[in-house]
Amino acid sequence: MEAIDDGRLARGTRLPSTRAAQRVFGVSRNTLADVYDRLLNEGYVVMRRRSGTFVADKIPESPATHEPGDAPPYRLNPYWLRTDVQDAIHFWREPGADQPRAGQSPGIDLRAGQIDPRLFPIAVFRRAVSRQLRRLERMPPRNPSSQGNQGNYRLREAISRHIRITRAVVCRPDEVLVTSGAQQAFDLLARTLVTPGETTVALEDPGYPPLRAAFAAAAAKLVPVPVDQEGIRVDHLPRDVGVICVCPSHQFPLGVLMSEQRREQLVRFARAHKAVIVEDDYDGEFRHEGNPLQALRMRDCADVVFYVGTFSKCMLPSLRLGFIIAPRWALPALVTVKNYLDWHSPTPMQLGVAEFIAEGHLAQHVRKMRNIYAHRRERLHQILREDFSDCLEPVPSSYGLHICAFATGNMDANLVAASAVRQGVQLHSLERYYMAPGGRPGLIFGYGALDVSQIERGMKVLRDIIRR
Amino acid sequence: MEAIDDGRLARGTRLPSTRAAQRVFGVSRNTLADVYDRLLNEGYVVMRRRSGTFVADKIPESPATHEPGDAPPYRLNPYWLRTDVQDAIHFWREPGADQPRAGQSPGIDLRAGQIDPRLFPIAVFRRAVSRQLRRLERMPPRNPSSQGNQGNYRLREAISRHIRITRAVVCRPDEVLVTSGAQQAFDLLARTLVTPGETTVALEDPGYPPLRAAFAAAAAKLVPVPVDQEGIRVDHLPRDVGVICVCPSHQFPLGVLMSEQRREQLVRFARAHKAVIVEDDYDGEFRHEGNPLQALRMRDCADVVFYVGTFSKCMLPSLRLGFIIAPRWALPALVTVKNYLDWHSPTPMQLGVAEFIAEGHLAQHVRKMRNIYAHRRERLHQILREDFSDCLEPVPSSYGLHICAFATGNMDANLVAASAVRQGVQLHSLERYYMAPGGRPGLIFGYGALDVSQIERGMKVLRDIIRR
Repeated sequence: MEAIDDGRLARGTRLPSTRAAQRVFGVSRNTLADVYDRLLNEGYVVMRRRSGTFVADKIPESPATHEPGDAPPYRLNPYWLRTDVQDAIHFWREPGADQPRAGQSPGIDLRAGQIDPRLFPIAVFRRAVSRQLRRLERMPPRNPSSQGNQGNYRLREAISRHIRITRAVVCRPDEVLVTSGAQQAFDLLARTLVTPGETTVALEDPGYPPLRAAFAAAAAKLVPVPVDQEGIRVDHLPRDVGVICVCPSHQFPLGVLMSEQRREQLVRFARAHKAVIVEDDYDGEFRHEGNPLQALRMRDCADVVFYVGTFSKCMLPSLRLGFIIAPRWALPALVTVKNYLDWHSPTPMQLGVAEFIAEGHLAQHVRKMRNIYAHRRERLHQILREDFSDCLEPVPSSYGLHICAFATGNMDANLVAASAVRQGVQLHSLERYYMAPGGRPGLIFGYGALDVSQIERGMKVLRDIIRR
Repeated sequence: MEAIDDGRLARGTRLPSTRAAQRVFGVSRNTLADVYDRLLNEGYVVMRRRSGTFVADKIPESPATHEPGDAPPYRLNPYWLRTDVQDAIHFWREPGADQPRAGQSPGIDLRAGQIDPRLFPIAVFRRAVSRQLRRLERMPPRNPSSQGNQGNYRLREAISRHIRITRAVVCRPDEVLVTSGAQQAFDLLARTLVTPGETTVALEDPGYPPLRAAFAAAAAKLVPVPVDQEGIRVDHLPRDVGVICVCPSHQFPLGVLMSEQRREQLVRFARAHKAVIVEDDYDGEFRHEGNPLQALRMRDCADVVFYVGTFSKCMLPSLRLGFIIAPRWALPALVTVKNYLDWHSPTPMQLGVAEFIAEGHLAQHVRKMRNIYAHRRERLHQILREDFSDCLEPVPSSYGLHICAFATGNMDANLVAASAVRQGVQLHSLERYYMAPGGRPGLIFGYGALDVSQIERGMKVLRDIIRR
C-alpha cells in the first residue's frame, strides 16, 4: 500500500496475477491472495472483468478518526466509548489493522474463531443464489411486512433439517428465527431477555467478549462464573440469575465439553430459579471424537434453552447468517425485536443459503471440512506434545476449530503472545477472555484458517520465542 | 391456502402458470403473482426448476403464538410487550396478516412506503451479484475483522457518487457507513446518540413510528414537535434537545418540503444547543417538481447532520441495505456500534449493490421509476381533485411515493380507512402517525406499489365508502 500511496505504483497499473506473483516473490499463492484481497477490500486496487487486478484510480482516504484537540460538538452515549467495551467489540481486530503497511505479510493467524474460506465451494453457492434470484424475476418479492420476518420458511425448514442431522436437535421450522449472524442473535436475545438494570446474567469465565458486550449493552448485571473440566460451575451461579450463557459442546475458549451430570444440574438449576439458558453452539458441526453428548437443546428442555447457531463457521462469516431456536413462548417477542432491528435478514442471502442446504451442499462441505480440520488439529496436537510439553498443557476437547492450552512452568503467556504478534503470528493469550482477575494463564491455538504447513511455521516461530 | 390446508389441493399438485391462471380466474397476472408469491413465502408451494409451481409436500405449521393460559416461565423485557411499542414496530403489518385466508385477494395497497418491485431489473442485479461472487471465487473473503465493518469501500464510493448526483450531497466514502437498511441505521443512531434516561430527542409529529420505536428503545426522552407547511416548528423544540429527527425533503407522512428559512433556523438552533440532526431521506431520489432545495446534509453542516439513506425505495426493500453519512467526529463510535450489532452487512449483497450502482443501473432505474411514479402521482392528484375535493385537501409536496390529504367537512378518516381495509384496500389514516393527541385528521395515499388502473380501482372503492 505504501508503494501505491507514495506513487511508486502508478494509478491504473496492472498487478501481476497471483500465479505470476508467486514466481516473482516466492511466497504462496494463498498469502498473495490474502494481500490482494486486503488491497481490494480497502479499495487500493480494483478488479476488471477478464483483465486482472489494477491499482485503483482513486485511493481511499485514511479512515475517519478522532483528531485530538478536535472536541466533538456532542456528547455520545458514553457506553460505547469505554475502553473495555471497545476492546470487547473490536475483539477480532488484528493489532495494527488501522495502519496497514505495504511489505508486511498478512502473517499467520493462529487465533480461534477463524475458518478457511479458501475451501468453501463459492461457485456452488453462487449458482444457488443465482437460481433463487432468477426465481424472484418471475415472482417479485413483496413489500416488507411482519410476514417473513421470522425468516424465509424454506431456510427455517432447511435449518431444522440441518441441525437434526449434525446436532441431533429436533425442532420445527416455526421454532427457528433467522438472524444476521450469531452476533445479532446475542444482541437480540440480550434486548429481549434483559430488563435493563434488573436482570442478572451469568457468563462463563473465561468467555467470548462480544457476547459479554451484548448483555452489558442491554444493562444487565453481569456475573462471571468459573468453568472447570466439566463445564460451568453450576454451584457458583447466583441465586437471582435470569439468563445463563454457556457453550456446552466446546466451551469458548477453553474447549471443555460439558459433562452429562453438569448438564442435568444446569437445567435443573435454571428451572428451579425460573432462569433461561442461552446455548452458543458456534462450531458444534465439527465434532472430532465420537461422543454421545449433543447439543443441550436436544434434551427435553426446549422450554428453557435458546440455541444460537451460525453459518459463519460451517459456511462463510461474510454471509452474516445465523439463527436462534427458541422456546415457543418467547418467539413472538423475539420476532418483534428482530423486526425492530432490521425487519428481516436480506432475502437473496436467505434464499441462497436455503437452496445450498436443501441441495445437500452444506452437509457435504461440513463432512469435507471436518476431515480437513481434524487433520490440522491432529498435527497441532502432535506439535504441542512434541515441542511444548514443558510449557503448555492442552485442555482436552472433542469439537471445534481451536485448542486451548494452559501455561505451565514459568512461561509468560501474555509476553509470548505479544512477541508472536510482533513477528506476524496472530495469537491470543487466554487473559483476553477472562472477566474476573486471577484466571489461569494460557494460549489459544486456532487451526481453522491455516493449512498444516502454516501451522508448522507459526508454531516454529512460537517455539523460538519461548526458547529465548 | 385453505384449499391446501383441508386437502382439496393435494400435496405435490402442479399449480397453473400465472398466465394460464389468468385465463381461468380472470384476474390480473400481477395479482396472481402476488398470491403465488405469498404462498411461496409462507411455504405452501414450492417452485421446481423448469417445471413450475407445486403444492408443497409438507406445509408449514401455524406461526408460534402465546397460548392464553400458557404463562411464560420467564419475565421478558416488558418494553417489547407494550402495545404501543408492538404497534410501532409492526407498523407495516397488514391487518389480518396473521391469518391469511384463501379466496381473499391480496387487495390494493394504498399505503405509503411501498414500492413497485415488479419493475426492478432483477436479472441485471442477479448478474451483478454473480459477477461479484465469481470474483470471490478467485479471491476468497478474509475472516471478519474490524476492517471493512464500515462497509465495503467500493460500495461506499458508489454511494457517495450516487447521492452526489441524485441529492447533491457531497461526501467522501470514508464518511459513509453501510447499514442493513434504514431501520438498522435508526437503531444504530439511537444507541450511539442517546445516553439512556438522559438524552432528549425531538421527533416530527406526525412521524414514522418505527423511528420513534428506535429512540424509545434506547431510553431517550421523546418530545413530539408539530409540523406546519414549512416543516418542523423549530420554535417548539425543547431547549435541552440532543437529537432532532427530520425528513426535510418529504416529511413523513405529510409530504411537506422544509423551507429554506426553516432549514437555516433548524441548523442554527442545533448548533446553538449542541444538538445533532438526523435527516431521514427515505425517498429523496424521487423528486417530481423542479426545486432548488436538496438534502439538508448538502449545506455546510456536515458537522451536525446524520444523513440516513436507503436502497429500499430506489432498489428493493428485501436487499436490506442502507447507509448513514455521518460527521467525521462520530464515525469511530458508529463503526463500533455497527460492529457490535452484526459485524458488517453481508458481503455478497454489498458487492452486488456496489456493482449495480457502478455500472449505472441504479441511475437508470431511478430515472425510469421517477417517470412511472410521476405518472401515477399525477393520476392520483387528478382523482383527488375531481372526486374528493369536498372531503380531502391534499398537502402540497414535490418528492416521493405518496400524497397526504387532510380531511375536510365531516368525513371521519379513521372510519373510512377501516372500511377500506375491510374491502381489501390497504389504507392508513393519518391518526396512526401522531404521537400527541388532537392531530389534524387525514388519509395517506401511496402510489408506489400500484399501477394506474389499481389506483383507480382503489380510489373508486374509497369514493363509494365516503358517499355512503
